[in-house]
Amino acid sequence: MLADEWKGREVGALEEAAKEIRDELVLRVKENGGHLSANLGVVELTLALHAVFDFPQDKLIFDVGHQSYVHKLITGRTLETLRRKGGTGGFPDPEESEYDAFVAGHSGTSIAAGIGLCNARDLRGENYKVIALIGDASLGNGTALEAVFSSETKPKNFVVVLNDNGMSISKNQSALYRSLSKMTAKKRYRKVNSFLGRTFKETGAFGRKLRKFKYFLKGWLNKNDFFERCGFKYIGPVDGHDLRELLAVLSNIRKMDEPVFLHAVTCKGKGYAPAEEDPSRFHGTGKNFAAGENSFSTALGRLLCERAEQNKNLVAVTAAMKDGVGLSEFSQKFPDRCFDVGICEEYAVTMAAGMAKGGLLPVVCVYSTFLQRAFDQIAHDVCLQNLPVIFCIDRAGFVGADGKTHQGLLDEAFLRAVPNLRIFAPKDCAELSDVFDFALTVGGPCAIRYPNGYAPNLGGTQKISEYYQWETLSDGDGVVVLACGARAVARALDAKRLSGTNCMVVNCRTVKPPDERLLREVSHRKIIAFEEGYLAGGFGSAVAEFYASCAQPVRLKIIGAENKFVPHATATQQAEECRLTAQDLARKIQAFSAQ
Amino acid sequence: MLADEWKGREVGALEEAAKEIRDELVLRVKENGGHLSANLGVVELTLALHAVFDFPQDKLIFDVGHQSYVHKLITGRTLETLRRKGGTGGFPDPEESEYDAFVAGHSGTSIAAGIGLCNARDLRGENYKVIALIGDASLGNGTALEAVFSSETKPKNFVVVLNDNGMSISKNQSALYRSLSKMTAKKRYRKVNSFLGRTFKETGAFGRKLRKFKYFLKGWLNKNDFFERCGFKYIGPVDGHDLRELLAVLSNIRKMDEPVFLHAVTCKGKGYAPAEEDPSRFHGTGKNFAAGENSFSTALGRLLCERAEQNKNLVAVTAAMKDGVGLSEFSQKFPDRCFDVGICEEYAVTMAAGMAKGGLLPVVCVYSTFLQRAFDQIAHDVCLQNLPVIFCIDRAGFVGADGKTHQGLLDEAFLRAVPNLRIFAPKDCAELSDVFDFALTVGGPCAIRYPNGYAPNLGGTQKISEYYQWETLSDGDGVVVLACGARAVARALDAKRLSGTNCMVVNCRTVKPPDERLLREVSHRKIIAFEEGYLAGGFGSAVAEFYASCAQPVRLKIIGAENKFVPHATATQQAEECRLTAQDLARKIQAFSAQ
Repeated sequence: MLADEWKGREVGALEEAAKEIRDELVLRVKENGGHLSANLGVVELTLALHAVFDFPQDKLIFDVGHQSYVHKLITGRTLETLRRKGGTGGFPDPEESEYDAFVAGHSGTSIAAGIGLCNARDLRGENYKVIALIGDASLGNGTALEAVFSSETKPKNFVVVLNDNGMSISKNQSALYRSLSKMTAKKRYRKVNSFLGRTFKETGAFGRKLRKFKYFLKGWLNKNDFFERCGFKYIGPVDGHDLRELLAVLSNIRKMDEPVFLHAVTCKGKGYAPAEEDPSRFHGTGKNFAAGENSFSTALGRLLCERAEQNKNLVAVTAAMKDGVGLSEFSQKFPDRCFDVGICEEYAVTMAAGMAKGGLLPVVCVYSTFLQRAFDQIAHDVCLQNLPVIFCIDRAGFVGADGKTHQGLLDEAFLRAVPNLRIFAPKDCAELSDVFDFALTVGGPCAIRYPNGYAPNLGGTQKISEYYQWETLSDGDGVVVLACGARAVARALDAKRLSGTNCMVVNCRTVKPPDERLLREVSHRKIIAFEEGYLAGGFGSAVAEFYASCAQPVRLKIIGAENKFVPHATATQQAEECRLTAQDLARKIQAFSAQ
Repeated sequence: MLADEWKGREVGALEEAAKEIRDELVLRVKENGGHLSANLGVVELTLALHAVFDFPQDKLIFDVGHQSYVHKLITGRTLETLRRKGGTGGFPDPEESEYDAFVAGHSGTSIAAGIGLCNARDLRGENYKVIALIGDASLGNGTALEAVFSSETKPKNFVVVLNDNGMSISKNQSALYRSLSKMTAKKRYRKVNSFLGRTFKETGAFGRKLRKFKYFLKGWLNKNDFFERCGFKYIGPVDGHDLRELLAVLSNIRKMDEPVFLHAVTCKGKGYAPAEEDPSRFHGTGKNFAAGENSFSTALGRLLCERAEQNKNLVAVTAAMKDGVGLSEFSQKFPDRCFDVGICEEYAVTMAAGMAKGGLLPVVCVYSTFLQRAFDQIAHDVCLQNLPVIFCIDRAGFVGADGKTHQGLLDEAFLRAVPNLRIFAPKDCAELSDVFDFALTVGGPCAIRYPNGYAPNLGGTQKISEYYQWETLSDGDGVVVLACGARAVARALDAKRLSGTNCMVVNCRTVKPPDERLLREVSHRKIIAFEEGYLAGGFGSAVAEFYASCAQPVRLKIIGAENKFVPHATATQQAEECRLTAQDLARKIQAFSAQ
């Protein structure tokens, strides 16, 4: 398919295409894993945008971007290789196609990027339309809100399309219906009215889950004049699955030059019954719609439930990653002690700081890549006050198919520099429990980082203590391999065998502070510091800094990821690409031994 | 003065105290530098809060916190030592007083922290009031907006007091007056009405400056039902300088348990004519109200004006730091190319990414401490797309009197790990110009960091080139001193003289990439890596990583700041406290030479 094909197509042809695209989506996401519900929900919206606007001359910016599969199909990309190494990525990427106007993967950026693009266009005297497609959940993110409120005027020829999944609006129906009366066409009113009625009924179960944030947002959306105050002409709500209506509305918008906020109501999972019934299950799925093997996540969820029974002050905080980080059971058992604040990482961390100040023990559960959003809040609100907040950092290291926007390779570098923060990297789920219990006793901020996927038990029974001591898993008089993190430790044990050398393998379960006693003991030997993270500023640097701060000359080799963005593939392939496998390590041990 | 003194005081006594406090504020800020206008504006508000609530049992959380001087006076602290080493800090600090419920220094955190504190209180079955005092500019920050929109209900016994400086409301007067009609007491209405009329008239000149953001915000504020939708009972606007009215309103609020949003209109600089007339000049001042010697800032401003003449694509972006970063002249000369987005660092960076994508060359001018707010946007929106955005990072290193919330010690660690980003640290203003011109040619993201205060010309004329080579400022066959950043280079040159050794002094003007050729050349010698920044993850680590990534054994000593939060003092005293002066370095060179 080529994008030009879609320009000016008639409704009938587009409706036909919508069917084919839906079949393709279900098939390919089943094969490759990915985000199904969101993409099923934007089939008509994406088709209509492509039928009306002139991409890539006009610019289409996705928010979060997991809903870009339809756009990718339409612009000539295959989903057969979706999220596979060398294949089509799961998020918009200007390197992949000129139709992808801006990168996305994190939330809330599209309006800010769109305004920037418009500013550039206008200063350079160019002429094109900029369209930002944003979901209702993303609109609550701080970056998006800053952009919406940034000024009372917005650039011309700028269109924000709100993809409103309409899943939690039930409580507020009357207000929404009232706002619809502003629509002039009676027929359209009835149509949307009936559509909305169906949608909210069907998705009532999921609606309750996200009620807190979304219910409020809907009320807010229905104040149409709200967006007018922000400098937009507000249009909507329109039925985001009615191609005829979408084509009519978008064609009108195309002729206008004033900034427009188009409110489209869609149904997440539309057209695939299992996804319509349980869109959250199909939000992001593994191959064959498996839930994914997140052993650390599962272990953490279980652990938090146990500790919460014993410790009434323990509460959990997350930012729209409740299931992903393993909090499903916790949220059911302790609904009053589980705070899912939506896609608001900054608020999550500062709110946790407030809870810690008030005597609770907040556990902030978040993916490494999204923790970046709250770096200042970690430093300024939590660590400066030395508050007992525990950060459980999931998806640290290579994340696999989500690719370069989602890699968990930065957290050690940015966390290591923050005073008062202790950083742990347990080697397996048993040690996660050990380290977590230790963190509860610290009385200050702690970060515990671990990867996604299957995590085997690696043995070793030496408990961590107040000395933050590392654990020698395999002794030997050869090279000392300091391995940090679950995957690095597992590979180091394999590499010992593969290398055929008598190296010593140490489980470096604290990144900060390091085990200075052990570092002093081995300072006369050849040392390799090994981890799955950027070499720059990471664990190996901590080791180098220790020796260099006391000017201790040492034969040290640091092995970590080269400083580049690592695209989608399996996590194992990503480790291969960055030469961080057990085989790579074994070769390096052999070479270093021989030096 | 003790806080208990203020509980239940009568209006007359408070009015008397307000006068004394204003005199003290003007006197002490003249002596010590600090934030005058904001504090003059909250005298009555702070007195009234202390007269009505039971602090420290009740919790008062400041936003940004530069308006806490009155609170500090009332709670028994002196301003004689304001912002001096060992004296009273310029921001709230729980370590300084139990009356300071939460740290502040960055913007937009108070509502999130307040909700967290309320959550803790309610889960623990405790009973106190939580009050967040936030200015209108802070309310536009992403963290604040996330907290406001986080849910449609807010905790009980939670009061947000909006300190609305009322400076740019003129355009929207009629809407405001209309909203006042909702107030029931006719007398109060007339009073506020007349007060508002006076205020807006008096401050019309400054109003224009901040119009863009604030004008919009006012319109928004006047939709009283807006905050009601966010779960607050909205009360206001009230005259924030009328003690009688404030006592009456706050006493009522104290008796309520529902969450309240109190909108108080105040006048920045109130009661000190020069500050009322030009509040921005007195926002943050040096001693004797001097503007401060910010040589790098001044040089940057001049440079940008020159380059903007030559290059039509160059635009400047800042986040409410326009004067501080040196953009005053630029904003006057190129009003269409200067984007001050208010206290929205995230939006600033992602918007800049959009502008770069659209063909402009955005220069983001920001203090090091506030850049932390946009870490994810730097990584995900700018660097992942390798966009030509130049970050000019002011106040890098020790910042002096602003103290621990404002130190610029983290930026190297968090920036160094981000792929595609080049980091420069020019030794003086001449080199700033050289490095900036080089950055313009790079075609990708660059960060240029430099400290505040006086920056002497350090000589040296070797221009930077595509090899990113460092500059040997003083040759010698002793220890190799790799100095990074203006202050470190100046101290290294002094230390050579003080040490009486023949050390070699290198100006390491790139942090990333390092000059690998030079590093290889000196690898057999004793090396000191020296900078004013946290040792963890900083410049010295970059040097150590280079050698350790190729397993090159080396006699390397890293000297940088110990990993702790460094409190207010002069920047020189802070360097002394962290043992980073020229004398400290000289001693270390001597000792290392003798080893």
